[in-house]
Amino acid sequence: MSIDNRLWSTKAKNLSPYVPGEQPKHDNLVKLNTNENPYPPSPKAVMAMQAVLADEACALRLYPEPESDELRQALADYYGLGLDEVFVGNGSDEVLALVFACFFMKQRPLLMPDISYSFYPVYADTFGVTTQSIPLKDDFSIDIKEYHQSCDGIILANPNAPTGRLLPIEDIKELIAMHPDAVVVIDEAYIDYADNVKQASAVSLIRQFDNLVITQTFSKSRALAGLRVGMAFANPNLIAALTAMKNSFNSYPLDRIAQAGAKASVEDVTYFEDQRTQVIKLRKALTQDLQALGFTVLPSAANFVFATLAAHDAADISDRLRQEGVIVRHFKQPRIKDYLRISVGTQAQNERLIEVLTHILSVDN
Amino acid sequence: MSIDNRLWSTKAKNLSPYVPGEQPKHDNLVKLNTNENPYPPSPKAVMAMQAVLADEACALRLYPEPESDELRQALADYYGLGLDEVFVGNGSDEVLALVFACFFMKQRPLLMPDISYSFYPVYADTFGVTTQSIPLKDDFSIDIKEYHQSCDGIILANPNAPTGRLLPIEDIKELIAMHPDAVVVIDEAYIDYADNVKQASAVSLIRQFDNLVITQTFSKSRALAGLRVGMAFANPNLIAALTAMKNSFNSYPLDRIAQAGAKASVEDVTYFEDQRTQVIKLRKALTQDLQALGFTVLPSAANFVFATLAAHDAADISDRLRQEGVIVRHFKQPRIKDYLRISVGTQAQNERLIEVLTHILSVDN
Repeated sequence: MSIDNRLWSTKAKNLSPYVPGEQPKHDNLVKLNTNENPYPPSPKAVMAMQAVLADEACALRLYPEPESDELRQALADYYGLGLDEVFVGNGSDEVLALVFACFFMKQRPLLMPDISYSFYPVYADTFGVTTQSIPLKDDFSIDIKEYHQSCDGIILANPNAPTGRLLPIEDIKELIAMHPDAVVVIDEAYIDYADNVKQASAVSLIRQFDNLVITQTFSKSRALAGLRVGMAFANPNLIAALTAMKNSFNSYPLDRIAQAGAKASVEDVTYFEDQRTQVIKLRKALTQDLQALGFTVLPSAANFVFATLAAHDAADISDRLRQEGVIVRHFKQPRIKDYLRISVGTQAQNERLIEVLTHILSVDN
Repeated sequence: MSIDNRLWSTKAKNLSPYVPGEQPKHDNLVKLNTNENPYPPSPKAVMAMQAVLADEACALRLYPEPESDELRQALADYYGLGLDEVFVGNGSDEVLALVFACFFMKQRPLLMPDISYSFYPVYADTFGVTTQSIPLKDDFSIDIKEYHQSCDGIILANPNAPTGRLLPIEDIKELIAMHPDAVVVIDEAYIDYADNVKQASAVSLIRQFDNLVITQTFSKSRALAGLRVGMAFANPNLIAALTAMKNSFNSYPLDRIAQAGAKASVEDVTYFEDQRTQVIKLRKALTQDLQALGFTVLPSAANFVFATLAAHDAADISDRLRQEGVIVRHFKQPRIKDYLRISVGTQAQNERLIEVLTHILSVDN
């Protein structure tokens, strides 16, 4: 159907919306395309959400607490921060949208890698932010020297997506120190899958640098993609901007169930650690199995791997995996068209992937 | 604490955020300040949400369906519309934000009443929309002849808030027909409390007028303020703009539990009708009781009343009610500073309000 856009604003006419990874409606698929956690969320988180619903005169008739204070306090306690250093929103996508509006709608460009989360250029379009794309090195790592130029902001995913590569914390420190008048955003959606998360994460740097914003999400390591909760950590002066922007868009982004579930998830440290460690182990096994089939696999600090197989068409492999009920993600951008991004599944799912890949490659040879 | 905003965008520096009604953290209050439903949501809605959580390998680890197709289909079926005529978002506040970005960011001004939902001027600031405020008549009704001027958009709450007054559907038709090149938004947050909702609502007009957008919410008549679900109905050409804007901000605004609960709420027609009718009865009784105490009460088609008492300071009454644990809403704008907006509570809550008011007035006399 062709759309008649005569009543649309110029802004609406010029949008280039984000295209999320497919959420297939039927089951029985080995779904390794959107980097979800192969394990369920904390049972304590589920119980906390059930408790909201168990109340006889169900509290859902009442508005939620607009600033999600209890959830923010739980995050503050977990990271040793103050309440005024923590912001939460309806998924880290919403948090990132507010970050763009608060810190990047300025004169000088926003710097970002040419290969990264594909929502960043969409936000830039939405908010009229000028961007400067900085190519990753040939090995898909980030060269911070390339970021030594005039800008009002920098955004990096760390580990980067879809590459999975981790930028060392020393480089991040240097980058932030290099740009005291720009806001540097480190999107740590996958950071909990770094081998040494305490060392890899930049959260502890927010007291050292007043121009640093860290974003994180409950959608990956906390297995709550279906609940839509994300967060940011920064100096109180930056958090205040996010809060003002939120309250100029939508005052109550987190519902009562999401606030309760996310809070209980943060408090269940044992479950989180067990399950995060398990995914890291599965990633290492999956990497070895792919290498045994001839794939080159980038070093990953995330819950996915980025892999390529010489002399094979990645799009074709993806299509053939799909025919066998295994979904992975292929991107058409020229620089990464030979790669597949494969989420770490359960052991059974990973084994099924390897089995199907083995079959596909044996037919080819 | 004073905020250092040196790293904020100009947009962020110039915001005037919305201030939501208070959500007190302790119980035992008669809370009649934010127009919530005095009754709980549909038990079938609660059961549908419990079912999402009962799944052993809880589905919350997976992203939700980004376009909320099943929920939108349930709404389409309820109103006899097509799927492409329905949009949903994270509360009608988020839907309204997207409406402003899609349809009002234009050259000519947006027309709106001087007294209405106080988030409208906030959105206008956020999106840089020029507005023209049109005074309500002395009796707080809307005179559509005043809207006969050049504009790119009109937004009206119907029934209006905080007045509760309903604009007749004939006037709405005339207004829309008057402005074929502007988008007319009717915010029907409270429409289900009109005595004859089928006649009062403009939803059925969206096929007749391609420039009409209706917004509604699950927060009032469906008793799900704590779940954050709102919707819009319009011609597919306008819905397409909202969808593009959503996917340029945040692709997954509704979590899995909210989608399931809202869908089941729409399908439970019997509960909805019973409980909506009950609130209308309670509103009529509350109106009579307030009149018996000497209050002038505007005719209301909502789940609240707007009332004033000659020779009494409304702010003072509000403060004294609060001391007795009864919270109502008082607005400081000069035109309405003598009024109180009182949500319709349960019979017991309304009786407690009248009891405390009677006591306050007896002390005064």
